[in-house]
Amino acid sequence: MPVLNDHALALIASPALAHLVTINPDGSPQVTGVWTAVEDGEIVIGHLTRHRKVRNVEGDPRVAVSWQAPGRNAYGLDEYLVVYGTARITEGGAPELLQRLAAKYFDDGRRFPDMDDPPSGVITRIRPERVAGVGPWTA
Amino acid sequence: MPVLNDHALALIASPALAHLVTINPDGSPQVTGVWTAVEDGEIVIGHLTRHRKVRNVEGDPRVAVSWQAPGRNAYGLDEYLVVYGTARITEGGAPELLQRLAAKYFDDGRRFPDMDDPPSGVITRIRPERVAGVGPWTA
Repeated sequence: MPVLNDHALALIASPALAHLVTINPDGSPQVTGVWTAVEDGEIVIGHLTRHRKVRNVEGDPRVAVSWQAPGRNAYGLDEYLVVYGTARITEGGAPELLQRLAAKYFDDGRRFPDMDDPPSGVITRIRPERVAGVGPWTA
Repeated sequence: MPVLNDHALALIASPALAHLVTINPDGSPQVTGVWTAVEDGEIVIGHLTRHRKVRNVEGDPRVAVSWQAPGRNAYGLDEYLVVYGTARITEGGAPELLQRLAAKYFDDGRRFPDMDDPPSGVITRIRPERVAGVGPWTA
C-alpha cells in the first residue's frame, strides 16, 4: 500500500499551501510555505534560487511537510496532513515546475515566474515515508 | 516593538489550527496540529498527557509554529505565519486551557475534555523570538 492514499494525493493536488519543515545547520527547525505536487511518487518543490531550505536539505535530508485541510473529522477536529520523508535536490527544471504549479495556485492563467530568461533553479524531491495528522490519510 | 504584532495576534486568536514543529531526539522534525492562544505574551498549548511533542520540547526547546491564514497578499500568494521561539513545559492547568481554547475551535459550546476528572496535564509555553511567512506580520 502506498504511503500517500487517494485522500492525501487529492489534498496535495488542491491549492492548499504546503508548509515545508527543514533542519537548520544548528539543528533548529525552519518552516516555509511552498507549492507542491506529486510527480513520479515524489513530492516536488521548485526553487529558482538556492534558498536556505535547499541548503538545509543538502545538510540533512529529513523533512516534514504539512497541509491544512478544509474539512473536519467526525469529532469536529480540523483535518490536516503531515508527510515525513527523505529529500534530495536535483538541478534544473524549476521554472517549468513552477509554471505547472501556478496553474493551481493562481486562477488567472498568469505566467510564473514572470521573467524572460529565468534561472533553471533546483527541485526538491521528497520520497514519502510516513503519514500523520487528522483525516482519511491515516486510515 | 513586540515580536507578534496585532495581525499575528488576530490570526492566532482565530480558529486557524496551528502546526507545532518540535525536534525528535534523533534530530528529525515532528509536526502536530495544536490549539493555541497567546497568554501573558507566550503562545500556550495544553496537553492532557506527556506526548512525544512535550518530551521533544524538554529535550530541545527550539520550536516553530505555523498557521495557514485565510487571505492572500497583493501578489496573490497565500498568507501564512511562522513563529520561532523557545518553549518550556509547566505542570498542570491543561483542562482549563483546553476548555478556553475549545470555545474558539468548536461552535457548539461543548465541554472539552469531556471527562469528569481529567488529568491536570502540562502546558507548553513558547516565548516568541522571530516571525516569518507571508502577510502583515512581517511588516
